[in-house]
Amino acid sequence: MIKIGVVGYGYWGPNVARNFHSCAGAQLTTISDISDKRLAVAQSLYPFIKATKDHMELIRSKDVDVVAVVTPVMRHYEIAREALLAGKHIFVEKPFTTTSDQARELIELADKMGLKIMVDHTFLFTGAVRKMKEIIESGALGRLLFYDSVRVNLGLFQHDVNVIWDLAPHDLSIMDYLIALKPHSVSARGTVHFQNDIEDIAYLTAEFPDHGFIANFHVNWLSPVKIRKTIISGDKKMLVWDDLDADEKIKIYDRGVEFKATNGSGSNGIHNLLVSYRSGDVYIPKIDNIEALRAEADYFVKCLETGEEPFNNGQAGLQVVRILEAANESIRDGGQTVTL
Amino acid sequence: MIKIGVVGYGYWGPNVARNFHSCAGAQLTTISDISDKRLAVAQSLYPFIKATKDHMELIRSKDVDVVAVVTPVMRHYEIAREALLAGKHIFVEKPFTTTSDQARELIELADKMGLKIMVDHTFLFTGAVRKMKEIIESGALGRLLFYDSVRVNLGLFQHDVNVIWDLAPHDLSIMDYLIALKPHSVSARGTVHFQNDIEDIAYLTAEFPDHGFIANFHVNWLSPVKIRKTIISGDKKMLVWDDLDADEKIKIYDRGVEFKATNGSGSNGIHNLLVSYRSGDVYIPKIDNIEALRAEADYFVKCLETGEEPFNNGQAGLQVVRILEAANESIRDGGQTVTL
Amino acid sequence: MIKIGVVGYGYWGPNVARNFHSCAGAQLTTISDISDKRLAVAQSLYPFIKATKDHMELIRSKDVDVVAVVTPVMRHYEIAREALLAGKHIFVEKPFTTTSDQARELIELADKMGLKIMVDHTFLFTGAVRKMKEIIESGALGRLLFYDSVRVNLGLFQHDVNVIWDLAPHDLSIMDYLIALKPHSVSARGTVHFQNDIEDIAYLTAEFPDHGFIANFHVNWLSPVKIRKTIISGDKKMLVWDDLDADEKIKIYDRGVEFKATNGSGSNGIHNLLVSYRSGDVYIPKIDNIEALRAEADYFVKCLETGEEPFNNGQAGLQVVRILEAANESIRDGGQTVTL
Amino acid sequence: MIKIGVVGYGYWGPNVARNFHSCAGAQLTTISDISDKRLAVAQSLYPFIKATKDHMELIRSKDVDVVAVVTPVMRHYEIAREALLAGKHIFVEKPFTTTSDQARELIELADKMGLKIMVDHTFLFTGAVRKMKEIIESGALGRLLFYDSVRVNLGLFQHDVNVIWDLAPHDLSIMDYLIALKPHSVSARGTVHFQNDIEDIAYLTAEFPDHGFIANFHVNWLSPVKIRKTIISGDKKMLVWDDLDADEKIKIYDRGVEFKATNGSGSNGIHNLLVSYRSGDVYIPKIDNIEALRAEADYFVKCLETGEEPFNNGQAGLQVVRILEAANESIRDGGQTVTL
Repeated sequence: MIKIGVVGYGYWGPNVARNFHSCAGAQLTTISDISDKRLAVAQSLYPFIKATKDHMELIRSKDVDVVAVVTPVMRHYEIAREALLAGKHIFVEKPFTTTSDQARELIELADKMGLKIMVDHTFLFTGAVRKMKEIIESGALGRLLFYDSVRVNLGLFQHDVNVIWDLAPHDLSIMDYLIALKPHSVSARGTVHFQNDIEDIAYLTAEFPDHGFIANFHVNWLSPVKIRKTIISGDKKMLVWDDLDADEKIKIYDRGVEFKATNGSGSNGIHNLLVSYRSGDVYIPKIDNIEALRAEADYFVKCLETGEEPFNNGQAGLQVVRILEAANESIRDGGQTVTL
Repeated sequence: MIKIGVVGYGYWGPNVARNFHSCAGAQLTTISDISDKRLAVAQSLYPFIKATKDHMELIRSKDVDVVAVVTPVMRHYEIAREALLAGKHIFVEKPFTTTSDQARELIELADKMGLKIMVDHTFLFTGAVRKMKEIIESGALGRLLFYDSVRVNLGLFQHDVNVIWDLAPHDLSIMDYLIALKPHSVSARGTVHFQNDIEDIAYLTAEFPDHGFIANFHVNWLSPVKIRKTIISGDKKMLVWDDLDADEKIKIYDRGVEFKATNGSGSNGIHNLLVSYRSGDVYIPKIDNIEALRAEADYFVKCLETGEEPFNNGQAGLQVVRILEAANESIRDGGQTVTL
Repeated sequence: MIKIGVVGYGYWGPNVARNFHSCAGAQLTTISDISDKRLAVAQSLYPFIKATKDHMELIRSKDVDVVAVVTPVMRHYEIAREALLAGKHIFVEKPFTTTSDQARELIELADKMGLKIMVDHTFLFTGAVRKMKEIIESGALGRLLFYDSVRVNLGLFQHDVNVIWDLAPHDLSIMDYLIALKPHSVSARGTVHFQNDIEDIAYLTAEFPDHGFIANFHVNWLSPVKIRKTIISGDKKMLVWDDLDADEKIKIYDRGVEFKATNGSGSNGIHNLLVSYRSGDVYIPKIDNIEALRAEADYFVKCLETGEEPFNNGQAGLQVVRILEAANESIRDGGQTVTL
Repeated sequence: MIKIGVVGYGYWGPNVARNFHSCAGAQLTTISDISDKRLAVAQSLYPFIKATKDHMELIRSKDVDVVAVVTPVMRHYEIAREALLAGKHIFVEKPFTTTSDQARELIELADKMGLKIMVDHTFLFTGAVRKMKEIIESGALGRLLFYDSVRVNLGLFQHDVNVIWDLAPHDLSIMDYLIALKPHSVSARGTVHFQNDIEDIAYLTAEFPDHGFIANFHVNWLSPVKIRKTIISGDKKMLVWDDLDADEKIKIYDRGVEFKATNGSGSNGIHNLLVSYRSGDVYIPKIDNIEALRAEADYFVKCLETGEEPFNNGQAGLQVVRILEAANESIRDGGQTVTL
């Protein structure tokens, strides 16, 4: 039985606690938070746990094998480091850390201590992302052409991180999971309207060394309409994921691009079009209705039991942080390309 | 009666000819094209016109007051210049020219000769764009926050210009018409998949000297789905234009951003959120069903009769070409910011 | 403090219990159910209540002022009658009873005993229905032309009532609440595919004595797609309610029908069209996000405190049952019109 | 070369003339209309034809093999009869005739004379209807459960026929073409708001002798929104046709109904649910982009050349008229079931 301690019982912590609590192989033993009120709520829901305001007490407890770090991002590194030093596995909220150096240090430390890191990229455990993974790995899309993601809506302003650090970790972790290609550089443009130095609109572009593949991310807190849409085009098939569509989240278009041989030339003395496109059926796969966070908790417990390395490990967390960090650098630098 | 000659009777020329033909104050007199077959079609539809393979014959004709230049873009400058030198007003297909220097030269020449230029930014004459102009000019949106435009679909590859020069002139001319703010710099990222040096996907960002306003344009020939959507957010109201929606093209959201005074601080020692948002009704104005090109032809005839300067004149055409030119420069230069 | 007892803790009972529990003026005191397991769940959530398998114990309890009857419909009458006889107010799940005679008897009994009946037509307390009520009462729609309701999807088969008794009570209670007109007759067609004598598809038409107003209801358990759409047309404005649209539930169309005077006659010797239509803007009002059942519970408590008669009283429940009863009669009789 | 004469050059006649004119095996020779102005338009488009105000001259002409009857419906029978008596094949606008007796008489007459009748059910030649025919004939849907059709929008009031005769012929001819089942009775409810005795809203139900299959048609000139949607459910798969969706007209849902064996009984002493449903992928077939009327004209020419009996012959026209006639009878009779 793997014993779980949760540090941070604010917005997301209760979900983490509840899902680990319901894992067959895990036991929720300890919760810490700086708020007495929130601790009281936790204690009433889980009368058997130890509730403490001192996260170091939790970290040092013999009743804790895994420390789930569900605090604001600026405290991830410090708490995670203490936990690793105390010999505990860690489950860390996304984004993993505020700098890639911190992420690398935690990865090395975990490695040295023989401990595991899971970064909570919850979306990777949804039915939709799993289905896309299956489709893309099958090769059905052919050569990938581009990845375009839009995640915008009104509100939910954060006051400690900008819109990129708030929204893009979802999409960056998903892209990293779905496709094998890795970006070599990043650029970003963002703009500030309301809060000092906190971008509320941003566009992030990742460039790849592969045949013109490009990825673009639009994240925005000031859009009147909510959009959560990703297009992934290949030269054989193309895919659209609309996360707001209750029934038809993923559509696979049997559309692609073809070369057509032509003879002669057009009326303007220019060679006729060589590129054409093809349009066929559309297919909407059934998506399994999974509670993503529950599946992720089960998976971490399984990894700890079997020694399997989680795919959403520290490296996966680092990859996202590297791009976020480069995006911030690019924005501060007027949109310069930042090599990863 | 203003006499019209049309140079180029390929894809768009027949529409230009037909619409000027149906203007009360205009008379279609001459059509030139390099194809015998297309000229024969024109002659059969308009038995009374002069059809010629020699555009210089058209330009020199006493039966022509206005030369409509509806050829591929690389020939616009040369033909427009000859027409102005021959004392003819010009109506030029978009984009106006292939360089801003050419555009400036034509503007100066027309000025010197006392002739008028209209650049065919047809979209400005649609009911939807006129309605948005009316709304934005009324100040209803408040302080503008961002402009985001997506114009993507599969196919319609061009072989002489890239996707920016093909699709963005629509959106750049619309933005220039709708909002008073003028960009001071442009950057763009694009990528090539199929044809040498011809980008088929591009993202273009325009930055403005005004309080964080930003504009972004996604143009793409490789998207499985057709999207023609523009979001224009203000701090009082926000607008979405979906040009593919037959009945509800423009939605005005009574949504905006507000500052809320707060006392004290959050649990992390950080000041509480100061920014909030407001969400109210949505309003879908009726859009007049106008044939845009017909309205534009009427307007040009009126301008010629009254001496009024068209709003879509050479300067408007130049403004679009400057941004296109800067976008190309930025793409070639790895996404560098190009000052306008 | 009004003391509440809930009979039936299956699918809907827990919601009724929870919402009365959270009313300021009410106190949940007793729950009865025939299942030990369900009672144990109730007891654990509300440790202070009396849980009993004997609903008569609940009805007779001095700790109960209101009996909420949340059992299958065939038991409503019997339990409600016992409750009234025991001097308790009743809150009864929809449909009120299985026959209109039962409904009338309960209304009379409550009247005689000075007790109140509320029938749980929850939809009447949603933001969308309240907003439609406001619009229609303002007279904005003009003379009403028709009411068309579609409530279909796959599954959720009931085994004790047909699709009309399962789904139509929602729509019949909503129509009765929204419009002042009352039907004088009903006809229905239905068909059985899978379960003996239990219609799974039905069409119900209500006819009115007023100028051609007609109402139609399509209820269906065998539709591949879920539709919850109501159209209410007037000659001045028209309204569409799409309950599945998260953001734009109600659209009000400034469309209507007009008479146009014409002179002369058409080419076929027939008088020209006298009727025309008008099409203007569309308006999407903001809908308040209310928890309907909570608002209903509050309202019943208020009615009990002040003596106000609830609008969703026994008479409102009877009106729905009369139409359901007539619909069943019509179906059994091959679609005959049944006068109400 | 089959010589075509067109009687009636109003709204639809020009389309019929144009499409027969472009058939390889046909020659448009004669057009008649009661309007001089319309005849002049026809003559200018087709300078080689005979244009006449006297349809009997057309019918008697040796230059006419086929008479296309494109007049208001009340004149179909008379003109078609004259044409058959004169030895001409006929192509008749829908609905075929105003009574089933007329239709039967024309069928017999054509039979006796060895002539062919085609009724212009244009929709049967669209890509969407052909695709549905293919799917349904393959048996993919399994046992058919219901057919539900909605064809509503604002306006386009007719002054000589009611909304059933105006709109339902489309749907009735499509249903007759798509499914093998034949209705044994019809009932309808309709209502009049503006024009004497001309229903502007109607609901039509067709009942079948087969296992509970039912068909319903909602036709309406007073709906603020345009809907053209048909649901055809089978117990294996289900199909939705949305004719207004430009890209995704037909969706095939891998959904169906299943029996589940159960043991024991539910908590209310009632046997547990035996019926369940299954939900899988959705498939959107590519629809060929066919000009339907052109395909129909080609098909009639082919039938005349080869002697093949058209599937949209007089019998198909009669089947639609029988249902329309029965629907009118039912409406006049308060919704009584009318046996076919």
